[in-house]
Amino acid sequence: MSATGEDRLARAALSRIFEPGDLRVSRLVDELGPGTVYDALRGERDLEGVLTDVAGRLVEVDPARELAQAARLGVRFVVPGDAEWPRQLDGLAGAAPLQERGGLPLGLWVRGPLRLDTLDRSVAVVGSRSATTYGAGVAAEVAAVTAREGFTVVSGAAFGIDQAAHRGAVAAGGTSVAVLACGADRVYPAAHRGMIEHLAAEGAVLSETPPGGAPTRLRFLSRNRIIAALTRGTVVVEAAVRSGALNTANWATRLNRSVMGVPGPVTSAPSQGVHQLIRTNVATLVTSGADVLEMLGGAGEHLVEEPRAAERPRDRLSTRHQQVLDAVPSERAAGTDSIARAAGIGLREVRSALDALERRGLVHRVEEGWRLAALAHT
Amino acid sequence: MSATGEDRLARAALSRIFEPGDLRVSRLVDELGPGTVYDALRGERDLEGVLTDVAGRLVEVDPARELAQAARLGVRFVVPGDAEWPRQLDGLAGAAPLQERGGLPLGLWVRGPLRLDTLDRSVAVVGSRSATTYGAGVAAEVAAVTAREGFTVVSGAAFGIDQAAHRGAVAAGGTSVAVLACGADRVYPAAHRGMIEHLAAEGAVLSETPPGGAPTRLRFLSRNRIIAALTRGTVVVEAAVRSGALNTANWATRLNRSVMGVPGPVTSAPSQGVHQLIRTNVATLVTSGADVLEMLGGAGEHLVEEPRAAERPRDRLSTRHQQVLDAVPSERAAGTDSIARAAGIGLREVRSALDALERRGLVHRVEEGWRLAALAHT
Repeated sequence: MSATGEDRLARAALSRIFEPGDLRVSRLVDELGPGTVYDALRGERDLEGVLTDVAGRLVEVDPARELAQAARLGVRFVVPGDAEWPRQLDGLAGAAPLQERGGLPLGLWVRGPLRLDTLDRSVAVVGSRSATTYGAGVAAEVAAVTAREGFTVVSGAAFGIDQAAHRGAVAAGGTSVAVLACGADRVYPAAHRGMIEHLAAEGAVLSETPPGGAPTRLRFLSRNRIIAALTRGTVVVEAAVRSGALNTANWATRLNRSVMGVPGPVTSAPSQGVHQLIRTNVATLVTSGADVLEMLGGAGEHLVEEPRAAERPRDRLSTRHQQVLDAVPSERAAGTDSIARAAGIGLREVRSALDALERRGLVHRVEEGWRLAALAHT
Repeated sequence: MSATGEDRLARAALSRIFEPGDLRVSRLVDELGPGTVYDALRGERDLEGVLTDVAGRLVEVDPARELAQAARLGVRFVVPGDAEWPRQLDGLAGAAPLQERGGLPLGLWVRGPLRLDTLDRSVAVVGSRSATTYGAGVAAEVAAVTAREGFTVVSGAAFGIDQAAHRGAVAAGGTSVAVLACGADRVYPAAHRGMIEHLAAEGAVLSETPPGGAPTRLRFLSRNRIIAALTRGTVVVEAAVRSGALNTANWATRLNRSVMGVPGPVTSAPSQGVHQLIRTNVATLVTSGADVLEMLGGAGEHLVEEPRAAERPRDRLSTRHQQVLDAVPSERAAGTDSIARAAGIGLREVRSALDALERRGLVHRVEEGWRLAALAHT
């Protein structure tokens, strides 16, 4: 199944002219269809009185050439209606805007072999560019553990947490996807050329911005909603109070995805934003990839065994027996009378308790009365 | 106002014989009154068939002598009915037991000038004996900030978080109270003699266990419910998976008190228990004394100002103006046409946006068009 050629051309042309997350165009396309919007704007017909300014430029765009050029760069344009279209994005059409951005993307420009319709089993791991080694370590662990369970890891391509997440997923032999604010043919930051090319070769690098586009501030904001919408849940590993990762978390909430936060020292600035998310119940606290799997998995698919300390012999005792055991001195032997007094329990009950404790190997009968066995000290 | 002398003697005698948190005796006293229970047991009458064993020992106890001896040690016995009785403890009578312990205490043995009825404005700060320097630092900060606002800090007397909490409160000139598992006349651990004596001189040291009593495991468990019940809320700073502090947190939940948890690195074992409390919504995440005050304070008494990054000049711009600003190259000047193309916005709108940006000092008009001003880089 595939969108009509006409729809694809209209979307490609509009994508070249309008900024990602422009609510005006996504609403019009939603209502009228891409072809009608494209034709009307090319005819310089005023749609809702807001788009006249830009309409003139549309006639200069040759969408067929755009698509051919993209193809030469290894970039395909995936649009709603294509079999490859990741249907989970459709929730964006109805979601309330955030910072005046939002809406369903016109399409996604994709480089890499991964088919986007396999992304229904995916998790976003995002966070601060100025991550600590602690944060980077946890991000890599979360990505590795979820990737090993077949989740595709989705992130940006920035320094810090994004990079650590891809590194963790790739090292675990998993699949990783970078969603860029610039064109999918471009490399930003330049230092991440190796990583981005690896993802394009093995997974996917994708963007709402057409090839050649520069990474602007607003494109980063719009990009965050794609990361949130593509995935089942977003894990924020470290995020200072002003962080794009918090914007992604807000989008995930808006789209009814799981939002998870990894805590850190309260003295660490890059953890402040995450603590705020947890404190205000936007995010659930997670401490590991296993916790994340539990949140993402369907009914009981990944139930985390809460860490429990090893059981000690005395844990299996009744309260009364514990009370008697506590009353046996640790350094010397004591008579039954003296144990009963120390325990504040009657003699008869203490006698039967001591017998039971002896059977469990916790006390020894000695000449002077009773002694703690070695086992009772564990 | 004061409990009758008879009641006090009966409670003192029963307190000498029964372990703290013994549900059988607290229920009987609740139903029949301390005098009736005491008389019945001394008369070796079987009450519910469970107390016969211990009744014989009751005749050996001389409660008047117990109280006189305690007084010589500087210890008074505060019981329900006394003006000094901390009424918030009464919630313990109806609370479900935990690990078979519970109930209203028979009374509290107290050493120190602080009147217990002033403890309605108090907070528990508890945690691991094997605290990290990070945890100890946060505990001291939380205790200092809350103590400065007139909250009495309540904790145990153990190494680690307990010690750090008292230290923080005392250093801030506040009041601090230690609830012990041993008799209030005793010092445990011995290394904390200086601290415990200081609290007894300036605040209070108290226990459900009568003077001379040893600190047993079950007494620690019973003691935790007193810490939780005395205070408006319990802050758990560091607590491994098996930690008495978690038991205190459970009691606080049971008694409808606030439970708060301070997060830490997920790689730190002493934070694991706290993360579990937060993750399962037993505790609310707090990061500072200010957060704790917000949780404890009445309606808006202490509203925390969420940390916010400093506002930058571009933050006040509309999205369209930001979009135009983003399209001005950072390294060179550009013409209005080229900026409009880069922004994907019509010429007319870009012209008026550039004028507005110039008025705000974010761009300069130069011969070749427009340049970013220094302010736009902040």
